Amino acid sequence: MTPQQFREYGRAVVDWVADYYEGIETFPVLSQVKPGDIRKSLPAEAPSDGEAFEAMLQDIDKIIMPGVTHWQSPNFFAYFPANASGPAILGDLLSSALGVQGMLWATSPACTELETHVLDWLIPILGLPQKFLSISNGGGVIQDTASSSSLCAMLAARERATNYVSNRRGCDGRLVAYTSNQAHSSLEKAAMVSGIGADNLRLIEVDEKFAMRSDALRRQIEKDRSAGLIPFFVSATVGTTSSNALDPLPAIGAICRTEGIWFHVDAAMSGTAALCPEFRFIQDGVELADSYTFNPHKWMFTNFDCNCFYVADRKALIDALSILPEYLRNTATESGAVFDYRDWHIPLGRRFRSLKLWLVIRHYGVEGLQFHVRRHVALTHEFAEWVKSDDRFEIVAPVPLNLVCFRYRGSDDDNQRLMDRLNHSGDLYLTHTRLNDRLVLRFCVGQTNTEMKHVQRAWQRIQEETAKLYLNA
Amino acid sequence: MTPQQFREYGRAVVDWVADYYEGIETFPVLSQVKPGDIRKSLPAEAPSDGEAFEAMLQDIDKIIMPGVTHWQSPNFFAYFPANASGPAILGDLLSSALGVQGMLWATSPACTELETHVLDWLIPILGLPQKFLSISNGGGVIQDTASSSSLCAMLAARERATNYVSNRRGCDGRLVAYTSNQAHSSLEKAAMVSGIGADNLRLIEVDEKFAMRSDALRRQIEKDRSAGLIPFFVSATVGTTSSNALDPLPAIGAICRTEGIWFHVDAAMSGTAALCPEFRFIQDGVELADSYTFNPHKWMFTNFDCNCFYVADRKALIDALSILPEYLRNTATESGAVFDYRDWHIPLGRRFRSLKLWLVIRHYGVEGLQFHVRRHVALTHEFAEWVKSDDRFEIVAPVPLNLVCFRYRGSDDDNQRLMDRLNHSGDLYLTHTRLNDRLVLRFCVGQTNTEMKHVQRAWQRIQEETAKLYLNA
Repeated sequence: MTPQQFREYGRAVVDWVADYYEGIETFPVLSQVKPGDIRKSLPAEAPSDGEAFEAMLQDIDKIIMPGVTHWQSPNFFAYFPANASGPAILGDLLSSALGVQGMLWATSPACTELETHVLDWLIPILGLPQKFLSISNGGGVIQDTASSSSLCAMLAARERATNYVSNRRGCDGRLVAYTSNQAHSSLEKAAMVSGIGADNLRLIEVDEKFAMRSDALRRQIEKDRSAGLIPFFVSATVGTTSSNALDPLPAIGAICRTEGIWFHVDAAMSGTAALCPEFRFIQDGVELADSYTFNPHKWMFTNFDCNCFYVADRKALIDALSILPEYLRNTATESGAVFDYRDWHIPLGRRFRSLKLWLVIRHYGVEGLQFHVRRHVALTHEFAEWVKSDDRFEIVAPVPLNLVCFRYRGSDDDNQRLMDRLNHSGDLYLTHTRLNDRLVLRFCVGQTNTEMKHVQRAWQRIQEETAKLYLNA
Repeated sequence: MTPQQFREYGRAVVDWVADYYEGIETFPVLSQVKPGDIRKSLPAEAPSDGEAFEAMLQDIDKIIMPGVTHWQSPNFFAYFPANASGPAILGDLLSSALGVQGMLWATSPACTELETHVLDWLIPILGLPQKFLSISNGGGVIQDTASSSSLCAMLAARERATNYVSNRRGCDGRLVAYTSNQAHSSLEKAAMVSGIGADNLRLIEVDEKFAMRSDALRRQIEKDRSAGLIPFFVSATVGTTSSNALDPLPAIGAICRTEGIWFHVDAAMSGTAALCPEFRFIQDGVELADSYTFNPHKWMFTNFDCNCFYVADRKALIDALSILPEYLRNTATESGAVFDYRDWHIPLGRRFRSLKLWLVIRHYGVEGLQFHVRRHVALTHEFAEWVKSDDRFEIVAPVPLNLVCFRYRGSDDDNQRLMDRLNHSGDLYLTHTRLNDRLVLRFCVGQTNTEMKHVQRAWQRIQEETAKLYLNA
């Protein structure tokens, strides 16, 4: 494809995208296809000859779109959001076009330096501790997901705890990690991947707000030490996936300090709320953390993948992950004056991901970002009030930010049926969890373009389907 | 940013990209900035108010471009390529705009099904074994990099070897992995990450062609078994990073079969050559492999990230990595009729990466892809002939495909100086390695737009700088 053709087809794709966003509410939010439907529409074999670009764009509409669940729809209230925005999409387009590999500073200095710089920018605007700044002994890096950065935190902790022996000789089954029984599944996966073992990840009980009980944590650590085991890693959550519960960071951090345990904080979605001073209480105690992670690709208008991972002691991370074969040696690396981000995560190759984050922050400005976060939280609290005022429903967890956990006062089956009807209608999409052993509906407001009318309409549809369910019961 | 504004700014970015590709040869290939130069040009703090998009696009030119190393320049001959193309960039733009999370089939069925389908398409056109097809017991998945997929192969092997006990109880230091001393550093990193330990990765010696010696592998396995250790994983390389050496897959695979060891094949760059039947000999023996990985984002015109990872027994992989928290439960998953790709790699979230690969294959067609790969190999062999015919140089490794390892018949310092001069001139970019304890220059032809004139000019510049070096000596 020549540059001239790229100009032409590129414009066609840009128009397609603009049309998509203009008409996004005409699609059912949750794809209605059955397993195998998409594959059935695709030719069995790759074409021998090249095809026209126009034909491919038509197939996007005809074949792909029926199988798309519209995460960018303002009627998307499921899971946690994965919101995007124009400046993010265009920043990512520039990244695709430049096609640089940022594995080393030397392989494209701007890729490394813009990333370091923009991650430093976030420290004051999120109220994070100075020790995470690159100009201190810390620093930030963009990873693909919080799963990966929590794994890296665990690896750095593992090596620090074993004086960098595990990296050489392998694990020996004596290290023990801790998180709450409400923490994200990625912690269990990290324990599996890293050779720690899922049985050596203690899932600490939670209080009535689904937050980790620090007294239970302390008791478990003592018990493990008595058994000759080595507590090395605690992960606390700022906003659990099930219910947005906030673990007590000051108490947990104090225990980690006393015990010499690596303290990791996972604020995957909720961390974005700290843009607003009035919500910054969620991360009180983060100054005690050794590492911190949150995802601009969830709630900060930056399309996937954009996870920000900070460490207070970058040397601990780098020493855990560094490898330097001859073919990557270069004078900049050997001078020690640069960061080589390949040593900050699992993959070697990496794209220019900071471009999109840079453009998002500049497009919105800090005040613009705050405006949208406040709007989402206000809409959520409004929704929560409506739910509270309807006797048929109950709210089953605190609503600190943008997630409401609620249920119809009936059986699990009733709630499942209600959710299925709503989702199959295509009008909105919401998902579930289990809290106190009951099925609970989750309503999360975080899509870039969600406004009052969408939340109102969602509540109206919930009421309508509940009425039908009640009549059918 | 409204859809209408996106239309306007999107066109501006598309034009910027087209202009960039039209003028790409006017930039020095290797960025000439010093550490800290880019950061100095950036404001110390994030802006409070939003900025105009035009200003950002200007800053791309003014601030970012001086710090870019032009991986998409036809004069880029360094490392391995990371080539891109128009259809890939536009496919990625569609992926950014749709912004779907493909963690589960249910969260966007097209994201999963297109990926499965396109990875099945590649099997016959690359001549890979049928057992990797999704309609058999295997299947393919797109990961970010070969580093990550080799790690996943090691994890699946670890669990199969320990009957899924390592995942629960952690590693115990008795598992031993094998690769050649020329294998990519990602294997050592995988051994570190997975709790196996780098000391338990045996780096098997190579022959005069830098290929793994299967007799040495067999002896080492016997020795380790005698010592009470458990050999569990062998990774062979199709095209090592240093010299493009080809490990003898049939002999290695036979040993793995006899010994019951997981056999992984890493063809990160060179795998693409198998598009052409005449180059398919490079992977003879891959039918014995349990897993296989190669990167369309290196040599197959698909921008980063696009690594293809195949397994013969997908259950082994999924069982090693699966986690199912309540909030991800859904009827499609529980029916068993779908793939949930979150269980095929480390991260949970994932973007719609198959779109770009699909558009690339359709745009070029299989014959178009073959044409470009053949062209690159032919240009490389031409270059090798020129080097051979110049007494001042020697070729130090076989040239099976698109990499020439050569050196000036002088000291390591002479070669380093020659490389530095060439790279600092900005006219081309090449990198080095060490073979037989001598510094060697690597010249790799794989950039999408590299033509005869670029290779000719590179050789001319090498000769010119060599002449200056000779006169200065």
